[in-house]
Amino acid sequence: MSVVGVVGGGQLARMMIPAAINLGIDLKVFGETDVASAHLAVTQVGDYADFTQLARFAKGVDVLTFDHEHVPLEHLRALQEQGTTVFPPPQALALTQDKTVMRSALEELDVPQPLWAVIDDADDDAVSHVGNFPCIAKLPVGGYDGKGVRVVTQWSEIEDWLEKGPVLLEELVEFTRELAQLGARRPSGQWQAWPVVETRQQGGVCAQVISPAEGLNPSQASLANSLAENIADTYGVVGVLAVELFEKPSGDIVVNELAMRPHNSGHIFTEQSDTSQFEQHLRAVTDTALGSTRLRDNTGIMINLFGSAEFSTWQQCAGDFPSVKFHSYQKPSRPGRKAGHLALTGPTTAETLSEALAAEEAYKGAHS
Amino acid sequence: MSVVGVVGGGQLARMMIPAAINLGIDLKVFGETDVASAHLAVTQVGDYADFTQLARFAKGVDVLTFDHEHVPLEHLRALQEQGTTVFPPPQALALTQDKTVMRSALEELDVPQPLWAVIDDADDDAVSHVGNFPCIAKLPVGGYDGKGVRVVTQWSEIEDWLEKGPVLLEELVEFTRELAQLGARRPSGQWQAWPVVETRQQGGVCAQVISPAEGLNPSQASLANSLAENIADTYGVVGVLAVELFEKPSGDIVVNELAMRPHNSGHIFTEQSDTSQFEQHLRAVTDTALGSTRLRDNTGIMINLFGSAEFSTWQQCAGDFPSVKFHSYQKPSRPGRKAGHLALTGPTTAETLSEALAAEEAYKGAHS
Repeated sequence: MSVVGVVGGGQLARMMIPAAINLGIDLKVFGETDVASAHLAVTQVGDYADFTQLARFAKGVDVLTFDHEHVPLEHLRALQEQGTTVFPPPQALALTQDKTVMRSALEELDVPQPLWAVIDDADDDAVSHVGNFPCIAKLPVGGYDGKGVRVVTQWSEIEDWLEKGPVLLEELVEFTRELAQLGARRPSGQWQAWPVVETRQQGGVCAQVISPAEGLNPSQASLANSLAENIADTYGVVGVLAVELFEKPSGDIVVNELAMRPHNSGHIFTEQSDTSQFEQHLRAVTDTALGSTRLRDNTGIMINLFGSAEFSTWQQCAGDFPSVKFHSYQKPSRPGRKAGHLALTGPTTAETLSEALAAEEAYKGAHS
Repeated sequence: MSVVGVVGGGQLARMMIPAAINLGIDLKVFGETDVASAHLAVTQVGDYADFTQLARFAKGVDVLTFDHEHVPLEHLRALQEQGTTVFPPPQALALTQDKTVMRSALEELDVPQPLWAVIDDADDDAVSHVGNFPCIAKLPVGGYDGKGVRVVTQWSEIEDWLEKGPVLLEELVEFTRELAQLGARRPSGQWQAWPVVETRQQGGVCAQVISPAEGLNPSQASLANSLAENIADTYGVVGVLAVELFEKPSGDIVVNELAMRPHNSGHIFTEQSDTSQFEQHLRAVTDTALGSTRLRDNTGIMINLFGSAEFSTWQQCAGDFPSVKFHSYQKPSRPGRKAGHLALTGPTTAETLSEALAAEEAYKGAHS
């Protein structure tokens, strides 16, 4: 098991390359284009939705894994039948491809989550089941980074969605902050989690991560770990699992979303933990014992850079921030796009956050 | 300055790739073969001693740097004249290509070093100048990892060398341990050093590194840093400079060897320091402000793996050593060859060294 194939050439595949280089794993990427973010490891370019192309890529690898969650499940099931090892397996990925499948699965596991209902049309009963207006409406399939999610105060606001198919309604959870529990599972069942982090969103997109989350109630931290492990075990997740959580004013936590791959909320572990999420994902999918998730510094701060993240711009501010780590995904500049991130570790949250935010301002100033 | 060209496709070029990926620098490697250790970044394959091939490679990069020190200086001078930026520049590399040039240069700088003499034939006066037999004889050019170095008790032992050309004689220094001072310099003159490390050799080859060196006399630590900076400044070194040192029973230090590139003694900084030597080298040669060299853990241990370093073998022992980082250079197996290394950081030297040595034993056991 030393040839790992990754479907998708985005920044997550890109950041698997350093881990693969260290471990001596051959990483092959099936990219949408040969100028993909992960271009150094792209060995095939094409359309992952085309089974023939996907099957050709799968032939050359020991295990198939993913940069994103969009590969059709029927393709993955067919590959499994042909003998390809697919991690995470399709029955696990199903939870991340369709949010209604996830909600049903979590309900069966008694995992705390927002009230929810699936509707086909303007159904006042369903609204009462999730509380009342305003509530959250989600497209079950295809949403990401705030896309496919709306706060709804009346039916007319999702008329366009209802014309096309079912919509997931969720309780508008009152929360004090958002958290994420990341961990990884290998086929044998070994589970290894990182401490819970806090994620701060802007416009529905993760803007900052504070690791670990400050002052977390220990029983909630323990619940976050055990519910993530429970999901991973029950559905046979292999690789990194990210569980996004809301923390309520009571301290209770409920599950917002799931991802089964390295996740934006875990980038800081590259600097802060003994094992990065990219290394851990490769260990898991190659059925290797998982690495230590000890944190090496008290606090880690990750700040996303949107639109552009260019080394030539960072060079202008690097001198004032010798401890800040700059990460570029080498993607063409586009407003709002996650283009890179900054990472900084340090002894206290207040100081580290303040320095990281100053570095972000400096980057933006140098870029404009 | 965001396309960096590296001459040589060995493990040092390989380990620059993760740093380049993080920073968003395009790394291009001129490799001896397309299955080189740094194969992912190889863009041209050929012979670096052939000026036409080298010049073609240099055309496509903003700055030319090195995985090794063997590129003919006259080629580099010619490239400079054609407008190529070469870091470190030829006048600095000259010190690492010919040990007699280095000895003269260090003498001019009043840097402490062993007694030395250059001889053309069996010259008893010269021996008295470096103490007496036994002394050290070195081929001025082309030696590495203990090759080209002999302990000499009588002339007959280097007759074969003397037939071919001058030989460097050096005092056989009585030392308590070997140390290395690493730092980096950028064109503007900024110098940033890591703490001094201890290197332990077996058969003339570095086997282990302990970082930082324990109980180092602060005045010697300060001398090590200032002599390295002095060498770098005087000769215009750009990139990482490694100064290998002997520590005498008196606590005095003298310079053994120099290298102007990332160096085996600095691998541990990848895990232990805010900035790896590979990132620092790329920062320096692109004239970017240097990164923090703070150590994140009290102790770091690096252990070289010789002969082979295969992920499939490491998988068999990884479970017992969750904090140990395995590095493979993905080189064909060959007895005695540096094939990879293990890295471990921790709170105390004794514990960390003992765990790292146990991991080495486990690797060897799994391999045999």
